[in-house]
Amino acid sequence: MLKKEFDAANAMYPFPVVLVTTHDGKGKHNIITVAWTTNVSRNAPCIGLSMGSGKLSFQNIQNSREFVVNIPGHNLLEQVDFCGESHGEEVDKFAATGLTAQKASTVGAKLIKQCPINLECMLKEIYRIEGANLIIGQIRKVHMDPTILDEQQKIDYHKLDPIVYAQKTYYRVGKAQQKRGFSKHDQ
Amino acid sequence: MLKKEFDAANAMYPFPVVLVTTHDGKGKHNIITVAWTTNVSRNAPCIGLSMGSGKLSFQNIQNSREFVVNIPGHNLLEQVDFCGESHGEEVDKFAATGLTAQKASTVGAKLIKQCPINLECMLKEIYRIEGANLIIGQIRKVHMDPTILDEQQKIDYHKLDPIVYAQKTYYRVGKAQQKRGFSKHDQ
Repeated sequence: MLKKEFDAANAMYPFPVVLVTTHDGKGKHNIITVAWTTNVSRNAPCIGLSMGSGKLSFQNIQNSREFVVNIPGHNLLEQVDFCGESHGEEVDKFAATGLTAQKASTVGAKLIKQCPINLECMLKEIYRIEGANLIIGQIRKVHMDPTILDEQQKIDYHKLDPIVYAQKTYYRVGKAQQKRGFSKHDQ
Repeated sequence: MLKKEFDAANAMYPFPVVLVTTHDGKGKHNIITVAWTTNVSRNAPCIGLSMGSGKLSFQNIQNSREFVVNIPGHNLLEQVDFCGESHGEEVDKFAATGLTAQKASTVGAKLIKQCPINLECMLKEIYRIEGANLIIGQIRKVHMDPTILDEQQKIDYHKLDPIVYAQKTYYRVGKAQQKRGFSKHDQ
C-alpha cells in the first residue's frame, strides 16, 4: 500500500524511561523523568539526554555539572509518571513519591535506592539544538542491584523490567527474540 | 540488598533499532543498522544517532549531508541483523537483503520500501564525543504505511512491532501499560 506523507514529526520510538536526579548545590534535590535518551560512546561511556531549558533539573545540571541517571523497573511506574508530570519548584518529589535518596560515590546528586541501576554522571557538554538541550554526561560509576543480574553479571532485562515510552504511552519490554549476529549463523 | 559497584559501562537500554540509508554521491547506496538513537527536539524535530568514524555510512553522511532513518518491523529482523554485521565496502546490502530502494522527496538517500516508517533527514551537526560521532539530523519529511496507524493517524506500536535492542539482544515491545499522566487521575 502507498505510504502517507507527513511533515517532520518525532516518529522514532520507543526509548527507556529514566529518573534523573539533580541538586541545586544548597541541599535541595530533585527528580525528573526523561525518555529522550541514548548511549553515545563506548570508550569512556557517555550518554545523551534531551531536556528543556525551563526545567529546574536543567538549571541544576548546568550549575552543578553533575547528575545521576536512575533506571526504574515497572513497579515504580506511578512514581515515574508523577516525577514527569510535577514540578520541582512546587513539590519535593522525593517526599511526595517516597523514593529514597542515597549518597552517590562521585557526585553530589543522589541515587534513588528503589531503582535497580544508577549511573553517576559528570556533565561533559550541553548542545543547543532547535530550542532543546542535548545534555552529554560521562558515566563515572554504575551501581546495580545483584537481583537483576544473570550469572555473567549482565543485566537480565526481564528481571529489570524497564519502562519504555512511545508517544505518551508506557510499555513493557517484550520477549527476547534473537542475539545480535544470528543472521550469520543461519547461512 | 546492597548494590554492586561497577566502573563506567553502557547500562541504559533498550533503544529502537533503525536502518539508516546513505549514498556516496555517485549512485552507490548503503544501509547500516543503528540502535544508539534518540529524539532531540520537538520544534523542528531533530534526532541523534551515534556512529563510528570508520563506517562507510558515516563517511557518506559527512559528504552528502543527508540520510534516511527507516524503521523496520520484526518481520525484517534477519535483514536488520545482516545490515549491522556486514560492511558496505564488501557487499551491496540492498542486493544481499532484497530490501527495495525507493526515491525520497527531499534527499538523495533512498527509502527502504519494506520499512513502515521512513524519516528523511538533513545533516545538521556532527559532535565528536569520546571517539564517537553524535550525528544530529533534522527531519524533513516522514512517510508512514497507513496499515500501522490507528484511527487518529497515530502510530500503533503493536502493529508497527518495532525491534528494540539491549546488550546484544533484540526484543519485541511488550504490552502497553498506562498513558502518560495516569498518576494524576488516580488521586
